[in-house]
Amino acid sequence: MTQSRLFCDIGNTHFYFFDGQDSYKVKAEGFDLSTVQSEVYYISVNDYWEKQLEDEVNWINLRVMIDFDKYYESMGIDRIACCEAVEDALIIDAGSAITVDKVKDGKHLGGYIYPGFNAMAKCFKDISPRLEVSFNFDIDLATMPKNTRDALSYGAISPLISQIRKDSDTKTVIITGGDAERLLPFIPRALIDHELVFKGMKKILQGKA
Amino acid sequence: MTQSRLFCDIGNTHFYFFDGQDSYKVKAEGFDLSTVQSEVYYISVNDYWEKQLEDEVNWINLRVMIDFDKYYESMGIDRIACCEAVEDALIIDAGSAITVDKVKDGKHLGGYIYPGFNAMAKCFKDISPRLEVSFNFDIDLATMPKNTRDALSYGAISPLISQIRKDSDTKTVIITGGDAERLLPFIPRALIDHELVFKGMKKILQGKA
Repeated sequence: MTQSRLFCDIGNTHFYFFDGQDSYKVKAEGFDLSTVQSEVYYISVNDYWEKQLEDEVNWINLRVMIDFDKYYESMGIDRIACCEAVEDALIIDAGSAITVDKVKDGKHLGGYIYPGFNAMAKCFKDISPRLEVSFNFDIDLATMPKNTRDALSYGAISPLISQIRKDSDTKTVIITGGDAERLLPFIPRALIDHELVFKGMKKILQGKA
Repeated sequence: MTQSRLFCDIGNTHFYFFDGQDSYKVKAEGFDLSTVQSEVYYISVNDYWEKQLEDEVNWINLRVMIDFDKYYESMGIDRIACCEAVEDALIIDAGSAITVDKVKDGKHLGGYIYPGFNAMAKCFKDISPRLEVSFNFDIDLATMPKNTRDALSYGAISPLISQIRKDSDTKTVIITGGDAERLLPFIPRALIDHELVFKGMKKILQGKA
């Protein structure tokens, strides 16, 4: 009998699992390791959990299999795994931060970091309570806003979209992360792939194992 | 003898004065009204001080002279005053928030709000301590970033600049506010005008008085 194999992307707040078919998340806080008996190939941006898992025989850290020379120092390992998944694409990972990375011929050309939408809303509120907002994601970016909610929504969304349109000379635009669905209507030719990070992890494992 | 006349733009933290020649700022907190004997024409986004000044005979609130129908409800009065200063321009006010407004044939076409650079830096830090940054304003926006500081600087600056380039079909781009000098190198054809709000206030006063 073959034991099942899991992939896991450990973030600051959650463990994101992929069993080859489905993905699901479990809260990092209070996570009980004894609930997982399978072999788990993982990456982690979470220092605490990476340390905890060091001596667990069924948890295999993919960090050692990554060619970090292809990427810049201190680049998040989850961003790297997403980049490893593609040969030519602009990758947008819309989570607590929004990262945008360009890969061409399997080479990382660079990338940048923009606040996630929740962080952006908090940012406006911190500037002034008058700027507290729940963003309007149905906003029409072709029209200049004429009320405060739209002015803030446009300010949070449109500059990023203008930048992405400039960046997306590559054929494929792939969006991943929790806010992917919110971004998609603004980048009609983009594809959503919530399993991109796991695809990258699989490639890392296959390429080096 | 003619008594001197002052203009004052009251923000959340400072009183910004203009005496017709020079501008200077004074902290709002603990501001002593008895230090100003001149006639002062003012606008205020600061509810507390607007209330305090209600019964001061030498402080004249320009709010009553503004045609608010030309603008959207809840639009900051300082933004309105800047718009009143021009006939055709894209106005960028780079302060604690960065507002971008379009005026054509003396008509406000709309505008949007983006976080100021200090707020943006705090926003990144709030997402993760790993994203604490002092922005690199010498960054080359033509190259995709390859280190965390540049990735964050590019993410804060470049989307806004891409958006502004799209917006600036009008002939003139005017930058005002405390971070005007930081933005200027990225928008070479723009002009800086730190007295724009006072020019608008003067026009409001002349048009209605």
